[in-house]
Amino acid sequence: MADRRSSQRVPPTTVRRLSAYYRALGALVERGVPHVSSKALSDLAGSTAPQVRRDLAYFGSFGTRGVGYSVDALRAQLARILGIDRSWPLGLVGVGNLGRALLAYRGFRGPEYKIAAAFDTDRTKIGAVVEGVRVSDVASFAEEARRLGLAIALVAVPADAAQGVVDQVVAADVHAILNFAPVQLRVPEGVRLSNVDLSMEVESLTHALTDGGVARAGRGAYHERGL
Amino acid sequence: MADRRSSQRVPPTTVRRLSAYYRALGALVERGVPHVSSKALSDLAGSTAPQVRRDLAYFGSFGTRGVGYSVDALRAQLARILGIDRSWPLGLVGVGNLGRALLAYRGFRGPEYKIAAAFDTDRTKIGAVVEGVRVSDVASFAEEARRLGLAIALVAVPADAAQGVVDQVVAADVHAILNFAPVQLRVPEGVRLSNVDLSMEVESLTHALTDGGVARAGRGAYHERGL
Repeated sequence: MADRRSSQRVPPTTVRRLSAYYRALGALVERGVPHVSSKALSDLAGSTAPQVRRDLAYFGSFGTRGVGYSVDALRAQLARILGIDRSWPLGLVGVGNLGRALLAYRGFRGPEYKIAAAFDTDRTKIGAVVEGVRVSDVASFAEEARRLGLAIALVAVPADAAQGVVDQVVAADVHAILNFAPVQLRVPEGVRLSNVDLSMEVESLTHALTDGGVARAGRGAYHERGL
Repeated sequence: MADRRSSQRVPPTTVRRLSAYYRALGALVERGVPHVSSKALSDLAGSTAPQVRRDLAYFGSFGTRGVGYSVDALRAQLARILGIDRSWPLGLVGVGNLGRALLAYRGFRGPEYKIAAAFDTDRTKIGAVVEGVRVSDVASFAEEARRLGLAIALVAVPADAAQGVVDQVVAADVHAILNFAPVQLRVPEGVRLSNVDLSMEVESLTHALTDGGVARAGRGAYHERGL
């Protein structure tokens, strides 16, 4: 029988839910809660109890009947699975408005993820220090990536520059990329590319504001229905 | 038997995939492709053929054996389901770096989603025009929301200001919120709140860079394995 614990086999939607469970467990740690049931965890993370049990079974984690999961132990296990039991230096390419917002973003200031280097092509930006990070010429990306051990690049450049940047990132042996540019990018096999598409997030909302495919007239309409 | 086509019953992860199918179909329209198989669509959207068939069956959409789905018809149907066969004016609260990035973001400049109003508390920003949108005092949010028919608010303020802004948005009868502030927010029942957590996106990458829960030594290691 195949080993279900291999990370290769976990569907992306499960990984997303694991991230949500991890956050919910963090909130429970802060409140000093020692154990949590799959039902309570699913409520906190916007999932369902059977889904929680199914997701955690991938990793051979089973709660105790009547007691639930140990919050600390499960959180440590999820951190290991998500790869955040260590620190990852990130490289940011593009120091425009979005790049500055990413530099200021709490989740990218440590301990798990820290933007360790920022790059731009704009001569007026190179050498500046933004949110404590010095902006380097993108021409030095490979050198800095090697020096800092960058494994992940955040790409926040205009759409027409993104493919060139990604090619450069891949050539520098950085093989995991989070792309914010609204464009379809090509990467060689073996490179992991994730695209952040903010309008997709809004589509979940407009789907909810829309009744069975027929848009409702206005705010009053769905308000009355309690959404 | 319950009507499976009711939008209330579609899981959030399915809605996310519908958004991905919608984008893939857009690329096919541009290339002039008239029909698509569930296999080809799943390849483009990072899903699987059975998953595509299951997702579309929610809406009673079935392809023709040997021909597949009509690209135009399926795309129009998905637009209706996602509520993007109409135009939604968005209200943005917070014109910092992230707010400016959102104002410049192509997906929020129309036709489906358009930031129609921007708000801030900073006197030096109020009255300014950013990316063609005038910044108003957040105190006028309710009035502007009514005038422009805002149904959705984007919240891009610092964490400690976010709850106050959300309370104000809800009081103004805007009941769908996309929150970018890294903080857990409370909303009354009937209000739809989505949180964008960028570090969750990176967790999918670090999970992939991590083998079965044990972080690999360096870039070379997972590169050799072809990830």
